[in-house]
Amino acid sequence: MAQPVAATKILLPETEMPTRWYNILADMPSPPDPPLHPGTGRPAGPQDLAGIFPMDLILQEVSGDRWVEIPEPVLDVYRLWRPTPLYRAHRLERDLGTPAHIYYKYEGTSPAGSHKPNTSVAQAYYNRKAGIRRLATETGAGQWGSALAFAARQFDLEIRVYMVKVSYDQKPYRRLMMETWGGEVVASPSQLTRSGRQVLERNPDSPGSLGIAISEAVEEAAGRPDTNYSLGSVLNHVLLHQTIIGQEARKQFALVGDYPDVVVGCCGGGSNFGGLAFPFLHERFTGNAPKAVRFVAVEPAACPTLTRGTYAYDFGDTAGFTPLLKMYTLGHTFIPPGIHAGGLRYHGVSPIVAKLVKDRHVEARAYGQVGVFESAVRFARTEGIIPAPEAAHAVKGAVEEALAAKREGTPRTILFGLSGHGHFDLTAYDQYLRGELQDYEYPAARVREALQALPVVPQA
Amino acid sequence: MAQPVAATKILLPETEMPTRWYNILADMPSPPDPPLHPGTGRPAGPQDLAGIFPMDLILQEVSGDRWVEIPEPVLDVYRLWRPTPLYRAHRLERDLGTPAHIYYKYEGTSPAGSHKPNTSVAQAYYNRKAGIRRLATETGAGQWGSALAFAARQFDLEIRVYMVKVSYDQKPYRRLMMETWGGEVVASPSQLTRSGRQVLERNPDSPGSLGIAISEAVEEAAGRPDTNYSLGSVLNHVLLHQTIIGQEARKQFALVGDYPDVVVGCCGGGSNFGGLAFPFLHERFTGNAPKAVRFVAVEPAACPTLTRGTYAYDFGDTAGFTPLLKMYTLGHTFIPPGIHAGGLRYHGVSPIVAKLVKDRHVEARAYGQVGVFESAVRFARTEGIIPAPEAAHAVKGAVEEALAAKREGTPRTILFGLSGHGHFDLTAYDQYLRGELQDYEYPAARVREALQALPVVPQA
Repeated sequence: MAQPVAATKILLPETEMPTRWYNILADMPSPPDPPLHPGTGRPAGPQDLAGIFPMDLILQEVSGDRWVEIPEPVLDVYRLWRPTPLYRAHRLERDLGTPAHIYYKYEGTSPAGSHKPNTSVAQAYYNRKAGIRRLATETGAGQWGSALAFAARQFDLEIRVYMVKVSYDQKPYRRLMMETWGGEVVASPSQLTRSGRQVLERNPDSPGSLGIAISEAVEEAAGRPDTNYSLGSVLNHVLLHQTIIGQEARKQFALVGDYPDVVVGCCGGGSNFGGLAFPFLHERFTGNAPKAVRFVAVEPAACPTLTRGTYAYDFGDTAGFTPLLKMYTLGHTFIPPGIHAGGLRYHGVSPIVAKLVKDRHVEARAYGQVGVFESAVRFARTEGIIPAPEAAHAVKGAVEEALAAKREGTPRTILFGLSGHGHFDLTAYDQYLRGELQDYEYPAARVREALQALPVVPQA
Repeated sequence: MAQPVAATKILLPETEMPTRWYNILADMPSPPDPPLHPGTGRPAGPQDLAGIFPMDLILQEVSGDRWVEIPEPVLDVYRLWRPTPLYRAHRLERDLGTPAHIYYKYEGTSPAGSHKPNTSVAQAYYNRKAGIRRLATETGAGQWGSALAFAARQFDLEIRVYMVKVSYDQKPYRRLMMETWGGEVVASPSQLTRSGRQVLERNPDSPGSLGIAISEAVEEAAGRPDTNYSLGSVLNHVLLHQTIIGQEARKQFALVGDYPDVVVGCCGGGSNFGGLAFPFLHERFTGNAPKAVRFVAVEPAACPTLTRGTYAYDFGDTAGFTPLLKMYTLGHTFIPPGIHAGGLRYHGVSPIVAKLVKDRHVEARAYGQVGVFESAVRFARTEGIIPAPEAAHAVKGAVEEALAAKREGTPRTILFGLSGHGHFDLTAYDQYLRGELQDYEYPAARVREALQALPVVPQA
């Protein structure tokens, strides 16, 4: 293999941007178990989702086709920031004194500052194509809501975002970003839905939760024919849309004649990890990988779905509205501790990623947030970019790989996904720098309790 | 000239990044008048600046060389984000219904989110090379301070940033960014300097001002042999470092076979405008421009230095520490109204830019901030990127050019500089969207008063 060149950024021209998404379901040696209808225990069909998703996305959810053409109007919006740069982290390598080559694929150049627009743009397009005029969604700290607000504007859709009230009050910047793009943002729980009103009746001062916000958005979408619901992770079609990340990275490695020994991504619902890793797993599954590559999904020790969860059928949401998904889960009633990486505070994970971990194609690791922020600050001070707390977990995973290479005195090529910038997360850095950031104990008792509340799967 | 291709982003590979800065002093048909020592009225010499600047920068300040080699360690840091993309604003063009081609050079991809690191990195390098261990500077809302904190970290310099107290309290995010990069941020006025203590004695609750913060930083640099001072605009060497912007844009236009009819930049101290425009002015001055290009500097109507100021010798700072600079000025004691574009709230302007306006090589226009934000929101909703309030002035200038082309039914190629993103300025957008943003009357009386306080130039 040729020596890597000394470039810092490896750029693809727009003409080299991938024009198809990659569907890993076509190549998995053993596919994941199907989602089940919670009432019947039978596999959930398109009719179970047709009230809130457009048919194109439902068909992508169950498609076995290896490649899915990206519609031209979606490519046209992607071109506003894609292809994204692949960086060689020369300065971080030097600072670590490692023989490893560290590369990172940076998704923070999108208008919303994360990888989320890769799917929000596609979802907005398919909804518009289906004649839908409005979208409803939920958001915690605002990453997903801002990505969908941006995308909705590109396709002249109205959008209402139910934003968890405590974030709505405490993190106004992402809300203002959504409003600047023309989105309507509502603090959840709200008076606009039955589920919101029920919560407020019991507790007028409720700070809200992602579970409540999902309930409000789904209720609105189910109740209005002009409105659909949009989800930012977990589902197969969402991960499908994210595979443009890894496909670009694959081409960029070819430009410099290198190839990763290990691919590292942070993992909450799994769309960032899958988007980066699946195109490299494709090469493994089809026997075309030039190396035995390891894949590492990094999660927070406070919400260790892959490393401590149970592989079982569970609801995707707290309220129990979704089909049952076979995945690693900490229990859908489990509420994770308040770590800063809000995007990784999820009790479950994509069924595809779960199956890949179960079958040992993918390793999982969990780190506490203090160590994660230590790595993130080291990264910011060498490479300049301040990572989002979620992305900081991948930084930590990559740093650990680089330090292992140093101990062993062997070269190693590391690719990690830097899924977003931390411009709206600087108070977390402030806490870390003041020594006030805490690691949470693994909440074993609460997980045990939540696992006892796993749904019983009806016999079909 | 060839037809432009349909690309959205025009990217330069790293190998095409310019390796020299362009010094317009070598080509100006009529050079600016020299800075004068305020005590003697004689041209200020290197010895007047040697206490707070390294000799390499002082020599660049007075150099007549057309090209200045960029040191390799500076190029090496530039590669973290340079070359920056040139965008064709297809979506904005469509939204405006204009026959114009609109291009923008986007500097918000730097770690600090603006063009400022082009000079902060160079200044940190030359100070380090001169054996300096610490830098002191001032910052208002934090753009310059964060750029210098990032650069200082790259060259292992300590840095103290005097941040205007009202911003320190109200805009914590840029402060946190500086601290994440390892900078020390002090609310100004502070107890650390004599000038700070004097202000606090008179008014313990002083909100601070840029003038006071400059005084504190200069006092510290003058009093400590290990510490120098750094300035983010106005001076010749600062504008020199920014010319990498326009040189890249020139190469990017060549890639698509187009050339601007008009170059638009926002103008406060002038470093962003100069950085973009000077390499194109070079082609005019040397007879190599393929067209008669117009150059438009856009400033706020509330601080209309170029359009309403007096061309005269004045101090560069409020306190009167600097040499006298020949420039357009509203008077160094003039305090501009509190518009959101903090980077454009400056009473003076670069002497080079001033001379170019005086000699009619550059046009100047002033816009009120309500119209500016209207254009910025239109830009954000079409192109995705949310502009910084300063950059939004250039957006407004470009939109006006595009609408003029539409009225006249003639094509026009517009290049404007999008000098930074607005991630830390979203409260300004909030005010605009709520209809609470106000335009300020031109403060004619206060300007008249300040102009009466212009310094008397001693007869040399």
